[in-house]
Amino acid sequence: MAKKIGQQTIVLDKQPIILSGAGIVGKKEGDGPLARFFDNIIDDEYAGEKTFEAAESRILRDAYIKALEKSGKSASDISIILSGDLLNQCTAASYAFRDVDTPYLGLFGACSTMSESLAIASMLIDGGSVEYAVCAASSHFCSAERQFRFPLEYGTQRTPTSQWTVTGAGAIILGKDGQGPKITCVTPGKIMDEGIMDSNNMGAAMAPAACDTIMNHLQDTGRTIDDIDMILTGDLGKFGSEMLKDLMLRNNIDLKNKHKDCGTMIYDLETQDVDCGGSGCGCSAVVFSTYILDMFMQGTIKRLLFIATGALLSPTRIQQGETIPGIAHAVLIEA
Amino acid sequence: MAKKIGQQTIVLDKQPIILSGAGIVGKKEGDGPLARFFDNIIDDEYAGEKTFEAAESRILRDAYIKALEKSGKSASDISIILSGDLLNQCTAASYAFRDVDTPYLGLFGACSTMSESLAIASMLIDGGSVEYAVCAASSHFCSAERQFRFPLEYGTQRTPTSQWTVTGAGAIILGKDGQGPKITCVTPGKIMDEGIMDSNNMGAAMAPAACDTIMNHLQDTGRTIDDIDMILTGDLGKFGSEMLKDLMLRNNIDLKNKHKDCGTMIYDLETQDVDCGGSGCGCSAVVFSTYILDMFMQGTIKRLLFIATGALLSPTRIQQGETIPGIAHAVLIEA
Repeated sequence: MAKKIGQQTIVLDKQPIILSGAGIVGKKEGDGPLARFFDNIIDDEYAGEKTFEAAESRILRDAYIKALEKSGKSASDISIILSGDLLNQCTAASYAFRDVDTPYLGLFGACSTMSESLAIASMLIDGGSVEYAVCAASSHFCSAERQFRFPLEYGTQRTPTSQWTVTGAGAIILGKDGQGPKITCVTPGKIMDEGIMDSNNMGAAMAPAACDTIMNHLQDTGRTIDDIDMILTGDLGKFGSEMLKDLMLRNNIDLKNKHKDCGTMIYDLETQDVDCGGSGCGCSAVVFSTYILDMFMQGTIKRLLFIATGALLSPTRIQQGETIPGIAHAVLIEA
Repeated sequence: MAKKIGQQTIVLDKQPIILSGAGIVGKKEGDGPLARFFDNIIDDEYAGEKTFEAAESRILRDAYIKALEKSGKSASDISIILSGDLLNQCTAASYAFRDVDTPYLGLFGACSTMSESLAIASMLIDGGSVEYAVCAASSHFCSAERQFRFPLEYGTQRTPTSQWTVTGAGAIILGKDGQGPKITCVTPGKIMDEGIMDSNNMGAAMAPAACDTIMNHLQDTGRTIDDIDMILTGDLGKFGSEMLKDLMLRNNIDLKNKHKDCGTMIYDLETQDVDCGGSGCGCSAVVFSTYILDMFMQGTIKRLLFIATGALLSPTRIQQGETIPGIAHAVLIEA
């Protein structure tokens, strides 16, 4: 049976297994350094649909189908789908899974959705409520820009701290048995708000939450950075990653070369004109579901702390003069 | 340990306990038939804040504090908060809990959020991952109207099938031990879309999902309507309730006088000018957290199937010509 240790970490007993993962991305992501790991790269940003929003649902659904295929399981083996996205009313996920005959739990964790879904699903599997689960998340540059910032047609200038919303969808099949890396620990995060008001600086809004969750995870488990092969954050981007490093140093922890960030890995920051890197629920979802799972398969890493980070940004509240809260959920994955 | 039975029902082993509940509402709800059960009725729709959105966060936070107080637990006893609301980016919940030093899981289930949070929390407690949890949801007439329909200042006419978004927040403290009714079974729902396109007819969008979840729950547990004291739906309203009754009859099940709907109970439909009744995450959240818990305390009911129902309505997708998917999650509560 699962057991809480320390302040906010849960040690899982049955250690749910990641059976498979799949990631589908857009053209820009397909031009980036991780291209060969993705299951599909769509050339058309509409993915054959009539709107960007429908396109996002389409790639999310396709990622789920691909992950299912790879897992060797059938749709009827799946007890539950846990998913979410950045669109208002999490509409990418709702519409992606409306024709799927499987119970569905909608999540909102902004860009932390992928690790939130893995955290909840692994606890549900550990507790016996669920046998096999789908964890999935998506984002789309075009649907996100017009919702959070401006219509693309405006050609708005970007600031140096801004991040590029990834067009991508990732899906993981998690199960009570099978072959693959295991989720052994979960550290759900608290909402942190350090007063950031710049909606073009998501990294700064999320870094304090990432720092808090990592600190708590290490303290709860009694581990140090040296015990972990890689600390993978969701999408802090370049600026947010530097901020995380600095915040950790203030807590006397040197991340050394252990820290990687999905937002800085998915694009070539020198050549792809993405400012501080990638963001969006789809960013960590596709990087984790493809490249990182491949590292486990190759044996390159054996213990990974995955912390997807979310800026709980509300354009309405920003217009009202509010600050941006952040959240970060961690799952420990072991070979 | 929890056990799945039939297609989509989970029978809980340790049967988490509802330690307390609290509900805070606005003036219109305070003028309704359930007034005496609410913990607080706010006269000012701003709840002392500067915006409707901030007011919603405020009442949600106050409901959490009140429920905590009644439970005899302290904030540090709580392992996790599960919450959500109707606002874009679920901002009522994020801002309500950003100063609370407790891990947080954000949910999006539209008006099904209250039973979604109870379903997940009870499975987490059953599995040992969580000891005590907060389940909470909110809505606010003024913040919802301007987001989903039109600014209030327009004075838009309402259609006969429309429902009135409840200004209210409900919170439940759920725990592994203590005194109170127990959650014994969970039936998470599937997303159903029967092609409803009228965003002023949420009841019709949700009724098929409610029917599907109830049917599956009965089939999985081998129970009949006669085994349950009350079937409580979230906020189908008057029209949606009639539709549910009809859909159930087509499946050869007569709901008889067992069915009640939070949306038709919270207002006096004859005198309060709310058309088909109440809606919004806060509707089922406050009715369940106050009036229904009181019925358990009085011994009036002993076995209740609570099915909060959500219309996964996206104004953007509606403008694009899409239909409205619905979802309904059920929890079985026993004295």
